[in-house]
Amino acid sequence: MLLAKRCVAEFIGTFWLVFGGCGSAVLAASFTVEGAKLDENTAFPLGIGLLGVSLAFGLTVMTMAYAIGHISGCHLNPAVSLGLWAAKRFPASELPGYIVSQVLGAIAGAAVLAIIATGKPEFDLVASGFACNGFGEHSPGGYSLLACFIAEVVLSFIFLMIILGATDCRAPQGFAPVAIGLGLTLIHLISIPVTNTSVNPARSLGPAVFVGGWAAQQLWLFWLAPILGAILAGFVYSLFLETSQRDL
Amino acid sequence: MLLAKRCVAEFIGTFWLVFGGCGSAVLAASFTVEGAKLDENTAFPLGIGLLGVSLAFGLTVMTMAYAIGHISGCHLNPAVSLGLWAAKRFPASELPGYIVSQVLGAIAGAAVLAIIATGKPEFDLVASGFACNGFGEHSPGGYSLLACFIAEVVLSFIFLMIILGATDCRAPQGFAPVAIGLGLTLIHLISIPVTNTSVNPARSLGPAVFVGGWAAQQLWLFWLAPILGAILAGFVYSLFLETSQRDL
Amino acid sequence: MLLAKRCVAEFIGTFWLVFGGCGSAVLAASFTVEGAKLDENTAFPLGIGLLGVSLAFGLTVMTMAYAIGHISGCHLNPAVSLGLWAAKRFPASELPGYIVSQVLGAIAGAAVLAIIATGKPEFDLVASGFACNGFGEHSPGGYSLLACFIAEVVLSFIFLMIILGATDCRAPQGFAPVAIGLGLTLIHLISIPVTNTSVNPARSLGPAVFVGGWAAQQLWLFWLAPILGAILAGFVYSLFLETSQRDL
Amino acid sequence: MLLAKRCVAEFIGTFWLVFGGCGSAVLAASFTVEGAKLDENTAFPLGIGLLGVSLAFGLTVMTMAYAIGHISGCHLNPAVSLGLWAAKRFPASELPGYIVSQVLGAIAGAAVLAIIATGKPEFDLVASGFACNGFGEHSPGGYSLLACFIAEVVLSFIFLMIILGATDCRAPQGFAPVAIGLGLTLIHLISIPVTNTSVNPARSLGPAVFVGGWAAQQLWLFWLAPILGAILAGFVYSLFLETSQRDL
Repeated sequence: MLLAKRCVAEFIGTFWLVFGGCGSAVLAASFTVEGAKLDENTAFPLGIGLLGVSLAFGLTVMTMAYAIGHISGCHLNPAVSLGLWAAKRFPASELPGYIVSQVLGAIAGAAVLAIIATGKPEFDLVASGFACNGFGEHSPGGYSLLACFIAEVVLSFIFLMIILGATDCRAPQGFAPVAIGLGLTLIHLISIPVTNTSVNPARSLGPAVFVGGWAAQQLWLFWLAPILGAILAGFVYSLFLETSQRDL
Repeated sequence: MLLAKRCVAEFIGTFWLVFGGCGSAVLAASFTVEGAKLDENTAFPLGIGLLGVSLAFGLTVMTMAYAIGHISGCHLNPAVSLGLWAAKRFPASELPGYIVSQVLGAIAGAAVLAIIATGKPEFDLVASGFACNGFGEHSPGGYSLLACFIAEVVLSFIFLMIILGATDCRAPQGFAPVAIGLGLTLIHLISIPVTNTSVNPARSLGPAVFVGGWAAQQLWLFWLAPILGAILAGFVYSLFLETSQRDL
Repeated sequence: MLLAKRCVAEFIGTFWLVFGGCGSAVLAASFTVEGAKLDENTAFPLGIGLLGVSLAFGLTVMTMAYAIGHISGCHLNPAVSLGLWAAKRFPASELPGYIVSQVLGAIAGAAVLAIIATGKPEFDLVASGFACNGFGEHSPGGYSLLACFIAEVVLSFIFLMIILGATDCRAPQGFAPVAIGLGLTLIHLISIPVTNTSVNPARSLGPAVFVGGWAAQQLWLFWLAPILGAILAGFVYSLFLETSQRDL
Repeated sequence: MLLAKRCVAEFIGTFWLVFGGCGSAVLAASFTVEGAKLDENTAFPLGIGLLGVSLAFGLTVMTMAYAIGHISGCHLNPAVSLGLWAAKRFPASELPGYIVSQVLGAIAGAAVLAIIATGKPEFDLVASGFACNGFGEHSPGGYSLLACFIAEVVLSFIFLMIILGATDCRAPQGFAPVAIGLGLTLIHLISIPVTNTSVNPARSLGPAVFVGGWAAQQLWLFWLAPILGAILAGFVYSLFLETSQRDL
């Protein structure tokens, strides 16, 4: 019963992460209107750009961490669940339930976004990329597979360090959602041009289900690299930075 | 007497939400000046864009939640009052006073904004749209009625989930205004291109009073959809996520 | 001795408000570089725009409120000191020391900014406007005297409502700097196009000392309107929203 | 043993400051894509601009302050360690370990960034400037040595005032990372056009190791000025603003 309640929370939270984060990218990033101009021909860049998308992804996590953190811990991300398990903060027995809920929530979020986005007649979901993650020729800035792999490992490693540190019992209480949410914003500020930023296998899977093709073929990297970085962080934090009896 | 004090607070808060949120959109979103250029002809996009407007709407709620949250709970939104009622957090007997105060505050905020905005000689209030919400041909990005309806229901549902979760007694104390305010920012980051973002019937009504015509005719959706999403969230949260005796 | 320490704090804080807020506007708002382009001729708008300037003003107050709030209360603004006095939260006897310190800090901030800004050979301080406040033909967007007066009164009124509410003993402890600082950001998001945003007589005076001419002639409005709005808020809050014995 | 753990934390934290802050500037500041346009030829300015870079630098510090503040105090900056020493808040005996860890972390952060950035075939690390700090002809906006020196001293002075004030035992507990992190954001909002913003000798050294030439030759200013400002602040705070017995 308690696990079921937590899985409902993870489903809703990951729905929100994908719907809100990818939604801001798909619907609002490069938006312009007829009426606002910089000169006779050039539109005013009203859209929220990569800065707005970065903020949106971070705020999905921050808002949900305050809303459901007390229910499920608000992982919303299989790499986070696995990193916490590696740091001995989360039981292996609950991994399957959490990860399945996250994946289903991500697919549901992408589905509702697809319905709304295609409510604009000229929108072409597959051609738009639909906020999928990619490397090589599908990296937004044309970054190589190696660069993309390193970026995802390093950023997922640091993301887990922030999560493990900010939820450490020695850290100020109540602020973890701010640190973690805005940490995800920061990760996006750095790396949208590289991979469109994943650090979250569920977030990558959600929109890839609807785009298929290259997005599905490249999905392996966005499961492998984030999970690798996260598990590494779990070991490093628990070995080198955890409170030991000697410190107290 | 206590209800009167709370209604004064709701009036001032909703005044601020409409004056500040719609004001940032009307006065500052696509602002340019003579002196700042990108090339010989093209103005520098000094205006705050949709990112700035999103931040403004969220900060109206965040600032008021710290300023008057301890007085009225800072709903500023009939859908919020109704969603809290559905979750059994707010008495039906106070709904009329709250909703009337919110609507009057919203109209007052739009009125003062109209006075300031028309202090710029070339401003045409009706032609500008005056930050009204719309669907179909009055959706900023041309989204269909169905897409707009779904967006408003889903975003209002999640908005109430954030409110109900962040004010749950198990959530960190004092942070609810940050989560709720920046949650509203996030909702705007996603959906200004779709409906100009309502999730708040009073916010939709305020400027529509001054624009009339299409804005008044389309107002029904921005009462129906937010209230539907909010009441649904109230039921879902209280049924599936509320603390039960068994959990304690 | 204690008043002297508080006056040092107010001097440093108001120095930072003017140096940081006006500095971001003068140095960074419409910045471009040779290397970054949108097409062959058009520069990438790297500068921070009105959104960045709004954030900068708010963060001067937020950072100082955490740094010196425990020393002086961090008013940094004669209108704030007078509004708190009107609400019976600040003694009349300390008004002169606070206001003189704020004015001197503002002039010092503008002076150091002038030295740095003129370190760029082509910079013309007077022609730039140097972030001074103005109305009518010196309003950034050409707003009338009446519109500018109403905007400054209303925004100063709400600014003080936020300050009085967020520092009320019933409000969550420790969050007032967030609410007040980001409240000032919000005020700038709305009104830079109208008056360049004052709500602070000392902030208006600092750069006007170096620009003279029209900036000095229009200074009266930016003392009169913010103080009027602030004192009005002090009375309204203490009469209608303050905790009364009956409420407890 | 405890010092070793703290040095690991300072290494990781300064790695993140340089990788994240400089990374956002190098990878994302002026990013554009083929598909998003303002008119037939002009790209939509998707990149995060100076506002996004300012936010990124601040968030590196804020996230790490919550993650490792309880381990090492999260200085991430030789000027901060020296300023805290001047204010009698940090022992001289730990300065060497901290500063060496910070410098090594900064170099490592710049190294990983170099690997990722050069994963984009057309990227020229030296020609890009690689987010190095500079003055005179290497100031982004062409500011003179004197202007750059004054800017770095004043901003480092205020940065330490914020740090010393926000971590004072009289300040609200738990909020120091918000004040300090967003204080660094504010410092960048003001001064990227002047010096590309240092206020941190380690942050300046990291990328200069990979650019060499002018960046290495101008490095002296970004050690001298921040340390001077920081030590000055340490003395001023401890002499004029510290809690004295008399105040309690």
